[in-house]
Amino acid sequence: MLEMKVLKMEDTVKVLKMKDVIETIEEVYRAQSAGASAIYPLITEEFVPGSAEMDIKSGWLKDAGIYGLKSVSWFEQNEKVGLPALLGTILIFDAKTGAPVGLLDGSHITGIRTGAAGAIGAKLLAREDAKNLLIVGAGHVATFQAAATLLSFPGLEKVMVYDGLDYDNADRFAKNLRGTLAADFGMENVKAEFTAVKDIAEAVGQSDIIITVTPSREPIIKKEWVKPGTHFSCIGSDMAGKEEIDPQIFAGAKVFVDDIEQCINVGEIEIPIKKGIMNRENISGIIGDIITGKVSGRENNEQITVFDATGTALLDLLTGMLAIKEAEKQGLGQIIEL
Amino acid sequence: MLEMKVLKMEDTVKVLKMKDVIETIEEVYRAQSAGASAIYPLITEEFVPGSAEMDIKSGWLKDAGIYGLKSVSWFEQNEKVGLPALLGTILIFDAKTGAPVGLLDGSHITGIRTGAAGAIGAKLLAREDAKNLLIVGAGHVATFQAAATLLSFPGLEKVMVYDGLDYDNADRFAKNLRGTLAADFGMENVKAEFTAVKDIAEAVGQSDIIITVTPSREPIIKKEWVKPGTHFSCIGSDMAGKEEIDPQIFAGAKVFVDDIEQCINVGEIEIPIKKGIMNRENISGIIGDIITGKVSGRENNEQITVFDATGTALLDLLTGMLAIKEAEKQGLGQIIEL
Repeated sequence: MLEMKVLKMEDTVKVLKMKDVIETIEEVYRAQSAGASAIYPLITEEFVPGSAEMDIKSGWLKDAGIYGLKSVSWFEQNEKVGLPALLGTILIFDAKTGAPVGLLDGSHITGIRTGAAGAIGAKLLAREDAKNLLIVGAGHVATFQAAATLLSFPGLEKVMVYDGLDYDNADRFAKNLRGTLAADFGMENVKAEFTAVKDIAEAVGQSDIIITVTPSREPIIKKEWVKPGTHFSCIGSDMAGKEEIDPQIFAGAKVFVDDIEQCINVGEIEIPIKKGIMNRENISGIIGDIITGKVSGRENNEQITVFDATGTALLDLLTGMLAIKEAEKQGLGQIIEL
Repeated sequence: MLEMKVLKMEDTVKVLKMKDVIETIEEVYRAQSAGASAIYPLITEEFVPGSAEMDIKSGWLKDAGIYGLKSVSWFEQNEKVGLPALLGTILIFDAKTGAPVGLLDGSHITGIRTGAAGAIGAKLLAREDAKNLLIVGAGHVATFQAAATLLSFPGLEKVMVYDGLDYDNADRFAKNLRGTLAADFGMENVKAEFTAVKDIAEAVGQSDIIITVTPSREPIIKKEWVKPGTHFSCIGSDMAGKEEIDPQIFAGAKVFVDDIEQCINVGEIEIPIKKGIMNRENISGIIGDIITGKVSGRENNEQITVFDATGTALLDLLTGMLAIKEAEKQGLGQIIEL
């Protein structure tokens, strides 16, 4: 008889703390750089082009002794049947026996691990004296980006939020952010100011760290607006054709990725490479190479740095295991027999 | 809140009847031939070469409105920790919403759907007046092959069982088979005789249908032993390098597969194609093409026919859905919330 743990979304919300997730994602990036992981080919399907799709990401973390997968789907019409458009399911196996270990709802885990990833890119590549953060996109994932980046840069003075399609949405987001950080992340007394911005050019010119989290297929940020020393964590681009920043920004920038093949195929670097603005050799490494000391990060205060994060199953699997271990401590979740 | 059904191995044993599984697998093959399905690339990992591996098979059945995956692992050392070497887990999603529908233990489902597949190959390609069946291999899956083939050919007179490594195993298998068919499959009053065979050459010469279900990497059956009109369902070969029958048998045979790419890569036709004995154009079609009438099956009583079955996720998904529906009727299984 096999026993496995099931965690529903509410359980994952209760047990995962952003600080621990950031450490977990750093551990994933370190393992990748050390060659202690495998990422398998991405499986994708468009059931209805543009409105219903799914992907299956899978991988193996050798030291953690787990392998598994996350299936994520996006069905635009789901609201009509009372379901979220975005759904995710994580399945974790023991790499010593092949036995299933856990089944978890993947929606909260996807958000929190993605927030941690963006912040780690900034922590490893932005100027240490960064004062101003710009978040491009004001959706659900943007909250996690704000929380993780503020935890990693407690000295931030200003967080600007831009929504190119709907200023009011950015305004609501900025107004609610202090309350959300306190309620959802236990982050009281954040000293930064939160403001929605209308003038993206001006906001970019003031920013030390820019995190992009939109589904855009057109660059939102132009190169001429960017001040020297800016760091970009590009999160939104995860499918061929998506792009959020001017491909010219990559010319001369120091660029790291979370997975070389996946980023070349579907990440923010896809289009600059297709346009010949950069090539594979201009990728300085995977982000974990900075953690393991294989490659240096930022070289000076003027350099533009970019972290292109498309997301891998490794992030979901180790965050999922963290949730399972924490749920065991707290007596949460359900045990099923297979 | 998402609800999904969980079926453990015992539940799948209780609810699945071989007769219904045979119909289900025919439906899968028909859907494949009609273009109403997708099979995604196979993901494989060898954790410890030769003793610990896993694969993830996935696919989409359009008319059934489901997609999903099966992860199967084989860890040779599992007995030491009290676990079966072979484990399987099936995850089914609703292709209209992306919501998870079911999580099922995949071990019994794998056995029963594979038995059904072998028998369907025989039903579509063997001579209708077939009298003698030879099963090469006397492991767990061989039981399902015997049950499904006897259901499809009630006129069979003799079932021979061969185990090249251990005659006593074949003997035990043959002696227990009548009891197993009655107890596990409700098949009373089977009129065929069951005999273990030592002389494989002689047994092959008497056989109208031969089903191979071994992990062999060397051909067990030589071409010169085979009588005209014999049908082969080759089940065991599912990894590069595996082969069960003389590649020369494929010269002039009428050959069907369950998936063209997968069989070329890992099936029984892999080696004959690599050796130039046959090529891709000599594959008459996928097996469902006979059901949909796209391609004729056996053309005369002398022809050698082969069905190369490597197994796809489609079989597991539709059999899994059958199990879920039946479990709902019978009030079996567990509901979990995600």
